[in-house]
Amino acid sequence: MAGGSFPDFVEQVSLIDHHVHGAFHADGDEARFQNSLNEGNTEPLATPEDTYNTQIGLAIRRWCSGILDLPRHTSPADYWSRRSELGELEVCRRMTRAAGVSDWLIDTGLDAADYLGTAGMADVSAGRTHEIVRLERVAESVLREIANPADYVDAFGQRLHELTRSAVGVKTVLAYRAGFDQDLSRPSRAAVVEAARRWQENACAGIHPKLTDVTLIAHGIHTAVSRKLPLQFHVGFGDRDLDLHKTNPLYLLDFLRSPEVRDTPIMLLHCYPFEREAGYLAHAFENVYIDVGLAVNFTGSRSRALVARSFELAPFTKILYSSDALGPAELHYLGARLWRNAITKVVGGWIDDDDCSEADARKIVQLVAQDNARRVYALPSALHRGATVDR
Amino acid sequence: MAGGSFPDFVEQVSLIDHHVHGAFHADGDEARFQNSLNEGNTEPLATPEDTYNTQIGLAIRRWCSGILDLPRHTSPADYWSRRSELGELEVCRRMTRAAGVSDWLIDTGLDAADYLGTAGMADVSAGRTHEIVRLERVAESVLREIANPADYVDAFGQRLHELTRSAVGVKTVLAYRAGFDQDLSRPSRAAVVEAARRWQENACAGIHPKLTDVTLIAHGIHTAVSRKLPLQFHVGFGDRDLDLHKTNPLYLLDFLRSPEVRDTPIMLLHCYPFEREAGYLAHAFENVYIDVGLAVNFTGSRSRALVARSFELAPFTKILYSSDALGPAELHYLGARLWRNAITKVVGGWIDDDDCSEADARKIVQLVAQDNARRVYALPSALHRGATVDR
Amino acid sequence: MAGGSFPDFVEQVSLIDHHVHGAFHADGDEARFQNSLNEGNTEPLATPEDTYNTQIGLAIRRWCSGILDLPRHTSPADYWSRRSELGELEVCRRMTRAAGVSDWLIDTGLDAADYLGTAGMADVSAGRTHEIVRLERVAESVLREIANPADYVDAFGQRLHELTRSAVGVKTVLAYRAGFDQDLSRPSRAAVVEAARRWQENACAGIHPKLTDVTLIAHGIHTAVSRKLPLQFHVGFGDRDLDLHKTNPLYLLDFLRSPEVRDTPIMLLHCYPFEREAGYLAHAFENVYIDVGLAVNFTGSRSRALVARSFELAPFTKILYSSDALGPAELHYLGARLWRNAITKVVGGWIDDDDCSEADARKIVQLVAQDNARRVYALPSALHRGATVDR
Repeated sequence: MAGGSFPDFVEQVSLIDHHVHGAFHADGDEARFQNSLNEGNTEPLATPEDTYNTQIGLAIRRWCSGILDLPRHTSPADYWSRRSELGELEVCRRMTRAAGVSDWLIDTGLDAADYLGTAGMADVSAGRTHEIVRLERVAESVLREIANPADYVDAFGQRLHELTRSAVGVKTVLAYRAGFDQDLSRPSRAAVVEAARRWQENACAGIHPKLTDVTLIAHGIHTAVSRKLPLQFHVGFGDRDLDLHKTNPLYLLDFLRSPEVRDTPIMLLHCYPFEREAGYLAHAFENVYIDVGLAVNFTGSRSRALVARSFELAPFTKILYSSDALGPAELHYLGARLWRNAITKVVGGWIDDDDCSEADARKIVQLVAQDNARRVYALPSALHRGATVDR
Repeated sequence: MAGGSFPDFVEQVSLIDHHVHGAFHADGDEARFQNSLNEGNTEPLATPEDTYNTQIGLAIRRWCSGILDLPRHTSPADYWSRRSELGELEVCRRMTRAAGVSDWLIDTGLDAADYLGTAGMADVSAGRTHEIVRLERVAESVLREIANPADYVDAFGQRLHELTRSAVGVKTVLAYRAGFDQDLSRPSRAAVVEAARRWQENACAGIHPKLTDVTLIAHGIHTAVSRKLPLQFHVGFGDRDLDLHKTNPLYLLDFLRSPEVRDTPIMLLHCYPFEREAGYLAHAFENVYIDVGLAVNFTGSRSRALVARSFELAPFTKILYSSDALGPAELHYLGARLWRNAITKVVGGWIDDDDCSEADARKIVQLVAQDNARRVYALPSALHRGATVDR
Repeated sequence: MAGGSFPDFVEQVSLIDHHVHGAFHADGDEARFQNSLNEGNTEPLATPEDTYNTQIGLAIRRWCSGILDLPRHTSPADYWSRRSELGELEVCRRMTRAAGVSDWLIDTGLDAADYLGTAGMADVSAGRTHEIVRLERVAESVLREIANPADYVDAFGQRLHELTRSAVGVKTVLAYRAGFDQDLSRPSRAAVVEAARRWQENACAGIHPKLTDVTLIAHGIHTAVSRKLPLQFHVGFGDRDLDLHKTNPLYLLDFLRSPEVRDTPIMLLHCYPFEREAGYLAHAFENVYIDVGLAVNFTGSRSRALVARSFELAPFTKILYSSDALGPAELHYLGARLWRNAITKVVGGWIDDDDCSEADARKIVQLVAQDNARRVYALPSALHRGATVDR
């Protein structure tokens, strides 16, 4: 850890990306790439080229161009041309390796054939991968498979047990499915069976609806809680299907106060624009952790201010790094690149202002970059980045 | 557009002020001027001189003094004395011309005799003016005029059609009248007629109440939507009659998701302190646009941070300039002055940090200053500012 | 006020800490000290040493070390060792005197034997102290004492009258007890008596519950309002018993709009993360004041941004200083230290950017540091700090 300046240290520290998805592996058209630069819109974009007129568009042209051997601020047309020439998989290889990420914790809840899975991501990135299991997906698949709703509770528990033998954590998308302004107390077995019966009734004619029933979602959450696995909550910024104001994490207060939850790490993901509220929860509850992934990519040059806000009430032992990247591997790289830029300015600024010593600053960076994630998810020791990560 | 530094470019770019009101034309006393520097208080101020002890007070003394041939940071007493000497109309002429605004889009919903109308504003400012029609005012006037509530739907449609032949957009003050936490789906004809009947009943004895009925307001909104006219929503910061927490634009999500709304430009005005939420909507919905007018004036030196926040999730093609000025023309000038100051620092900072090229920065400024507004409101081409705007 | 640079001026201005609690006087163990560095958690901390890995931990090591004759950024172990050597009372004496506070307005609602009272605080700090009476505590004590609920209204009024003969203001913790999303209109005498009767019924067997009944709390508030005493509201950030989202001060709008409240100074304390909403209320209502105490301490180096946000819509005549310190006197000192740091940067930045003159800047600092508090609470003139405050 000695040697080199603080900016060098930030440049070289390996990251654990504790919430990410698979990258594209097969070539696609420009519209697919452009649409991937809009997180919010769930429909085909009328003017996809407008997605370059954004913070993320500027950031890609600034930071990703060099990885593709292009000059900074290259035009969108030249960028797309070079990207096509290299092919999706080569872009992916370059971007994921340039990210300096030792471990990717992959939410496989979206693993359509379009996205690399854990094995593919490990291979292309030369990093380690670990699985995060999405609770609602498990629930939906068990509901489809069982003949009798009375079997649901046991079947769900059994399936989760099997899946989390190798997985390092679970995730809930309650934010998308129902919002947080709900009763999240543990439902009774009878209530869960009744909810399973209702779901199956609605799933007639082979159409399986998305799971939006709060009883079933709360049951999934409490089943995970009883196993004390790190439990990720999507919080805040996401696509427009979500009622953003209902994903204020303060609505989770009653849930967090319940004694059975206190030994389960609760990971609040993304959080924008509720990062102050999330930081408060990380301050007030010893089992709550936060990150500002996803929003870092989409706010581009403004992510410095966002990262700064995440360092208010949350203890430094409770802040993690994530990209929440999905699709074009520019997102896997940019998350790390913008985080390093922000940390250099924010934490480096504390050194400059003598708010902390440089040794303190390095320790803080080390915690957020990897130590906190390794501890919470019980991951094996870091690769020595210089030796094993190809840059 | 070439030549000169980036700050020079920002200094010289013409603005379209897409939401503004008329300026005072007749002389008034100092209390009128001071009260105009408080947006929130709806009652006569007990200590109006305290309005100088504010960000806007500092900003007027700093930036407007020179326009009146006074030194910077002149005292309030000297400022008022010189202002009185020049007279309201001369102050208005100087301020509006110094703003560098080519086009003013004037909400005439407040056009009491105190304020200049579109013709007066064009004359005094040497700029072009366009009208924005306030829906609730149209509704109130139709309700007063028709004898039979059953005629309301047709009469309102007809009146709106007439008014918007020349107007470039419409505006709703739903935020003031009922808040956004309402059912804004299209009401049935029968429901509208019934609501019109109720309003007329309440308007007995010649007293015409303010329109607060959500059915009638939603009807006005949907009538405007069906014509695909740019539709402005007052959002956030306003006077104390408004329940600020009920003007969070996220409450508009259901409305924005309805398919019939998607082709109508929705203009979220002001937005403070919900500018991040508004930016999210501009990101997620192709027809949503934002500005941070009004709050720019009232936050003064802190408007740099506000403008910076407006450049997070919103695409640069979806951000507009407005002052929301009303009354003393210092407000018409300051909006532009503070916006230029903020843009020079914020977007100029991106150049300095190499987050974007200077060419990118100029394009972004051009979009926000005028191109976005000209496109959305289908305005004629800009005046060449150097040639035709008297500075 | 003349002479010296602006930073010197900020360094030397005396503060009125308009909301603070007593400091510890007796020695305690390290866990007590560490737990005092977590505001949110209401339970014994599992890993109290983690409280050093925070902004407040860095701030103590940076700013308080020198007061204890230690080098900057000293280790937690060395800090604790030196602190123990000096003893709690000596630490308290040093910290409170270094704060440069002329007057402490002490909320005695928590005056357990652990904390110094007004006399002790005056003695140890060599400053003046004044009492703030906590309404809910008064209500609880009257409820315990009276035999007949019918006597409650008169007994409460009488007790409040007695207590506020010497006290300079009152405080409500409605935020903790019920949240602000309540009907806060003045309850009828009958409703209050009935609520008193219910409380006494629940207080059977000698167990006296915390007062959470909104009728009784609203009665306390309106009784205080009728005496026009400055009325402090805890707003926002506090411990996890509080539903943070229900302490948004905008929920107080109906209360603030009621005519009988307009002549009572309403002091919104802390406000994080609702400082913009609070600033709006201070702008819109002539009797509303704000501070950002408590959060200044807990956000450490990030408090500069917080203080900056408090200078947006709120007039400079409506912003006050407080620490909300409780327990270790580092908190009494840090509040002042971090406030001076922030003001030097924020208001000093206005001078540097020529947003205001240096004379304006000094006047603003003077208002916030002491003049506003002295005026609102009708305190006697400031001590001449250089002469009478031992540094």
